[in-house]
Amino acid sequence: MQQQRMTIQFQAIATVHSPFQDRVGMPIQPTGAEGIQGTVEVLPEFAPGLQDLEGFSHLILIYHLHQIQNSQLTVVPFLDTETRGVFATRSPARPNPIGLSIVQLLRRDENILHIVNVDMLDGTPVLDIKPYIPDFDPRTEVKMGWVEQAKGQVVNRKSDDRFL
Amino acid sequence: MQQQRMTIQFQAIATVHSPFQDRVGMPIQPTGAEGIQGTVEVLPEFAPGLQDLEGFSHLILIYHLHQIQNSQLTVVPFLDTETRGVFATRSPARPNPIGLSIVQLLRRDENILHIVNVDMLDGTPVLDIKPYIPDFDPRTEVKMGWVEQAKGQVVNRKSDDRFL
Repeated sequence: MQQQRMTIQFQAIATVHSPFQDRVGMPIQPTGAEGIQGTVEVLPEFAPGLQDLEGFSHLILIYHLHQIQNSQLTVVPFLDTETRGVFATRSPARPNPIGLSIVQLLRRDENILHIVNVDMLDGTPVLDIKPYIPDFDPRTEVKMGWVEQAKGQVVNRKSDDRFL
Repeated sequence: MQQQRMTIQFQAIATVHSPFQDRVGMPIQPTGAEGIQGTVEVLPEFAPGLQDLEGFSHLILIYHLHQIQNSQLTVVPFLDTETRGVFATRSPARPNPIGLSIVQLLRRDENILHIVNVDMLDGTPVLDIKPYIPDFDPRTEVKMGWVEQAKGQVVNRKSDDRFL
């Protein structure tokens, strides 16, 4: 089988504004950020691409975890005490520091998206915005590996300094 | 509010092997690709990051839609006959051509992930692999905008040449 080694370039299309200035003490997923409001300020040149977005209650934001300097291939995740392969976790210290959050869209004012359940740092560069369509998700039974015993904790667990 | 204009670089960590050589006639989402098998071949240097992944039944793949040359800010999506803002669609012709698919993991052989429900082109460069954890998804009622009336069609609708 052939392999591909290549560099891929993207441009930020938007910036997150949130109450979180510090990587320590943040919610670790949107489910732990209930009620936290913020905005996504889309660069005006991309504003025409936002048409019809207001019909959706939830958005998928794909963003650059811009304060991650070092990646690790194995990590002790916030929800665990054991070392796991980084791709089996949502740890931010990934080879490509790409974040994914599903947030609720409150309203759109032209190029400003008002969102809630924000678990992103202030200033986070956004790469893509997609509508959240649960019908596109798997419907079969889902196994969640090591997360099974930890999943109830995600609402209250905050980030610490392990990935600084 | 301040804005950020920046270029962000990522490296492919893996390559998709799938039966799809041509962008026309493909399933448009994993829900339309039921039973289609493929593999994700992870570069050996990243293989230690795959530890524990086999405990999860479903993976989120974030990948480069590498055959997209032009982006459009408004598109007529495969599921619709009207023009929509590209960020309100899953169209591949996006400003940053980043794809997102949730696939089922059948098994892992070292750095090879055997997956099913593959809706990606053969040779697609993968940027990130995350475990799919439905508990991290929204639990409240979800509104799906223009997709509401079209959602039943996604299983059978195939791609055509509109984004070539």
